[in-house]
Amino acid sequence: MAFISEDFLLQNKTARRLYEEYACGQPIFDFHCHLSPQDIAENRRFKNLFEIWLEGDHYKWRAMRTNGIAELFCTGNASPHEKFMAWARTVPHTLRNPLYHWTHLELKRYFGIETLLDENSAQDIWDHANAKLPDLSAQAILRKFDVQAVCTTDDPADSLEHHERIAASGFSVKVFPAFRPDKALRVEDAQALNEWMGRLSAVANVEIGNLSGLLDALKKRHDDFHEHGCRLSDHGLDFCFAEPCTRQEAEVIFSKVRKGTNASAEEATKFASFLMIFFAQLGAERGWTKQLHLGALRNANSRMLKVLGRDMGFDSIGDGRQALPLARYLDRLDRNGQLPKMIVYNSNPSDNYLFATMLGNFQDGSVAGKIQFG
Amino acid sequence: MAFISEDFLLQNKTARRLYEEYACGQPIFDFHCHLSPQDIAENRRFKNLFEIWLEGDHYKWRAMRTNGIAELFCTGNASPHEKFMAWARTVPHTLRNPLYHWTHLELKRYFGIETLLDENSAQDIWDHANAKLPDLSAQAILRKFDVQAVCTTDDPADSLEHHERIAASGFSVKVFPAFRPDKALRVEDAQALNEWMGRLSAVANVEIGNLSGLLDALKKRHDDFHEHGCRLSDHGLDFCFAEPCTRQEAEVIFSKVRKGTNASAEEATKFASFLMIFFAQLGAERGWTKQLHLGALRNANSRMLKVLGRDMGFDSIGDGRQALPLARYLDRLDRNGQLPKMIVYNSNPSDNYLFATMLGNFQDGSVAGKIQFG
Amino acid sequence: MAFISEDFLLQNKTARRLYEEYACGQPIFDFHCHLSPQDIAENRRFKNLFEIWLEGDHYKWRAMRTNGIAELFCTGNASPHEKFMAWARTVPHTLRNPLYHWTHLELKRYFGIETLLDENSAQDIWDHANAKLPDLSAQAILRKFDVQAVCTTDDPADSLEHHERIAASGFSVKVFPAFRPDKALRVEDAQALNEWMGRLSAVANVEIGNLSGLLDALKKRHDDFHEHGCRLSDHGLDFCFAEPCTRQEAEVIFSKVRKGTNASAEEATKFASFLMIFFAQLGAERGWTKQLHLGALRNANSRMLKVLGRDMGFDSIGDGRQALPLARYLDRLDRNGQLPKMIVYNSNPSDNYLFATMLGNFQDGSVAGKIQFG
Repeated sequence: MAFISEDFLLQNKTARRLYEEYACGQPIFDFHCHLSPQDIAENRRFKNLFEIWLEGDHYKWRAMRTNGIAELFCTGNASPHEKFMAWARTVPHTLRNPLYHWTHLELKRYFGIETLLDENSAQDIWDHANAKLPDLSAQAILRKFDVQAVCTTDDPADSLEHHERIAASGFSVKVFPAFRPDKALRVEDAQALNEWMGRLSAVANVEIGNLSGLLDALKKRHDDFHEHGCRLSDHGLDFCFAEPCTRQEAEVIFSKVRKGTNASAEEATKFASFLMIFFAQLGAERGWTKQLHLGALRNANSRMLKVLGRDMGFDSIGDGRQALPLARYLDRLDRNGQLPKMIVYNSNPSDNYLFATMLGNFQDGSVAGKIQFG
Repeated sequence: MAFISEDFLLQNKTARRLYEEYACGQPIFDFHCHLSPQDIAENRRFKNLFEIWLEGDHYKWRAMRTNGIAELFCTGNASPHEKFMAWARTVPHTLRNPLYHWTHLELKRYFGIETLLDENSAQDIWDHANAKLPDLSAQAILRKFDVQAVCTTDDPADSLEHHERIAASGFSVKVFPAFRPDKALRVEDAQALNEWMGRLSAVANVEIGNLSGLLDALKKRHDDFHEHGCRLSDHGLDFCFAEPCTRQEAEVIFSKVRKGTNASAEEATKFASFLMIFFAQLGAERGWTKQLHLGALRNANSRMLKVLGRDMGFDSIGDGRQALPLARYLDRLDRNGQLPKMIVYNSNPSDNYLFATMLGNFQDGSVAGKIQFG
Repeated sequence: MAFISEDFLLQNKTARRLYEEYACGQPIFDFHCHLSPQDIAENRRFKNLFEIWLEGDHYKWRAMRTNGIAELFCTGNASPHEKFMAWARTVPHTLRNPLYHWTHLELKRYFGIETLLDENSAQDIWDHANAKLPDLSAQAILRKFDVQAVCTTDDPADSLEHHERIAASGFSVKVFPAFRPDKALRVEDAQALNEWMGRLSAVANVEIGNLSGLLDALKKRHDDFHEHGCRLSDHGLDFCFAEPCTRQEAEVIFSKVRKGTNASAEEATKFASFLMIFFAQLGAERGWTKQLHLGALRNANSRMLKVLGRDMGFDSIGDGRQALPLARYLDRLDRNGQLPKMIVYNSNPSDNYLFATMLGNFQDGSVAGKIQFG
């Protein structure tokens, strides 16, 4: 029996009925993804299985590193084919990790391949899949899987030029930006923040001389994103920032960082808390939905952070406290009358119990809030 | 097959044997409940299913709010029938929550109703259950379920007048108070604490001018509770308070609060730690058993806290550290020779592992302690 | 059917195949145990089931204390037979604890006993097992179970004389020391540390007047252990120590403690962090593997700590933060080019998720590291 059969993951009659009669025929509204707007705008055609599958997937890199594969074959200068072979060697060791399921589900659904991927089957799968790639351009995939709308992940300093091009092209799938201002919080790294504020200032056409300038530029981009169809903000936080921080305190921290001095960890938490309230205010004025990503431990490997930068798969589950700061943040928004629709993701399954109960604290028919934990 | 059958929750032969041959015929000794002593004293007759089932149940309110039901139908001014209908609409969405089990178990056992409660069945169930209520007075229920003894939850500032009335009435079920002095710990809210100390002072007939006065008044009530049959203290703490705090430090904090200034969070932890040692001393002198409730995050919604007060269901699971402060508290009582029989409840199932192992640290034949984790 | 059958713990066909065809015939390489080198060197013959089974097993003491057995029968002056009877009374209450499995697995494998141990069977089991003990000397057991190599747990202040005697004896099982320098970290207890440093100084033949002296003595013993075949260091830490601490700061703390003043908790964390980096450097020079034991709460009962000392079973699972300090420590070693092969044990199963993901942060083909979580 094939690993990916008709009943894959459907272990009883009710599961099959729910999937076949209800879920299966539904179109996709993808409100959180990391697809490249540029790839969609250019309707990128992928040269080989590496480009479409491995080029930017840090989940696969993590698994490969865990399997002892050298960085050369993850993000390094090895050839696409060599990197694919290194991934193929790793796949059998991902059994019980969702990567194993995803890998074979994708081979089946996109390429009709039922063979399990390993070192022996790799060359055949490479050849067979590459031959099918001409039918799988970036836009063709979205249409093939009946995607109605997709929200990408975009930095406030991004020009949104690719989104404009997609919108102007009449592409049948709706593609919207999502507002992810994580970089604005990073006062611990003055140099990176100032470099980023330079780009933000330019694209917003707002001078950033003091805190007001930063807030004005962020609001300008928030407005721009709204005009491009954005209705979602998105925040990657290891834990919620919810320390009291006055405008004056935020200004002092900002000035220090603007002059090139890194903020302390305490200052960073305060400043991030201040901005998270500000973002909630912007979102509330526009009726946006907010996404929070909690429970990770990011960029744990400082050596590789220096070499490769952030978000390269050197992240794991964290065990910081979630309940109190999240409750404080939600409470503050609720008191401000700014509690949005909200989706909370948490990486640590040990916290599932507490998140399941957090919901009822702030949700009733009298407030706008509708919080989901995913 | 009915949801509540003879084998409800009994999934194998051993479970059925244990229940049918051993547990089923046992009487009930309920050492922790929130029944109203006044209702028992007055042998309250409930007018309708709302009064007996929904009037004060914050678990149901939580579920209703989570389901988007407006506060009007939870604690607000909607009619009893409207509130019941709002609960009925919510019940099908509580599937997999124990509320779903409790709801249908209660409908079956008290009213003989086997229909699942939802919006459609609600009116019939309302009529049918209300018709049976004349047989279900507060005292009749306790007798019907073979309750031998029940311990209510009582504030040291409570006069215990209802307990006196029950005892004097010759009611066959033993009803005892339990000593729950949580309000004494709340030095962060000077106004509420001073108001409460006014009532405590009056009922104890002890002046509370300084810390000694407070301790004297608490001891006086502890003695009074003992005379009314109380053998249990009961503490609702999100986590155990176990910071070192000298008598002198406690006096300084007390004086500040007595004059109307709120204590800081650090002071509150110290003061609560001091009182928790004091309560253990009172309990040890009398041989009482102690109950600790840990692992919650209480009163998370400050807007509703202002409107409705504490303990209205705006509570969830917390993820504060439990192991070290609990170990410190138990260790301190053990060193003082005051380790009581103790029952520890913890809200966060992720902590089950650690609580299962905490037991052996302080329990042997040479000390009084017999700690249970529930 | 016997509790310990051929299929014990093997619940399906694949499990049986893996065990019978692969695992069963393998020899044992035990890289972590608490066997006594002296017992092995002297080829100790055990007089009775107490000596071989209960004499030093703090897991059994924990279970007995939990069961209300007085300390007299755990570590006290009761007779061996009385202690065995107290353990026998406890065994039926350990159901669902691995102790229950271990107990009966050991009775079956070492003594051929299939009867379940309880108060009634205790005397027969005592007699029957004792009669078989002449065949079960310390060395005979290691040979009987096909142990190829075993690593004991040894203090840097230990002379390793028993290891020398074993090596000289030509015993067919390889017995190596493991380097466990936990006592060097305990600057919170100046008296105990100074007493220990006295012994370390003597055995290393290095004067310990300042921090350099301590580091020299530790390095000397590290070299000695290496010469005795040691390739493992071993650290029992409730959580990883990873606070920044300069050499100068460590010297200040050392001087204070050397003069007899206990270090504060903060100083202790800093000093331990400093030494943990030092041990990693020693290990990296020699290519040793490192073992970390995290997630416990040790010596929770201060009364019994005074009476019996450390590691007597008054330990439980802890809930301190693991992710960030462990990530920091691994990151520091990685930056220093000193990331060793490493085995991490964690006591709290709630942390299993995070430990499963920590691996990929520091492991690739370009570094020496190969981290396992057990």
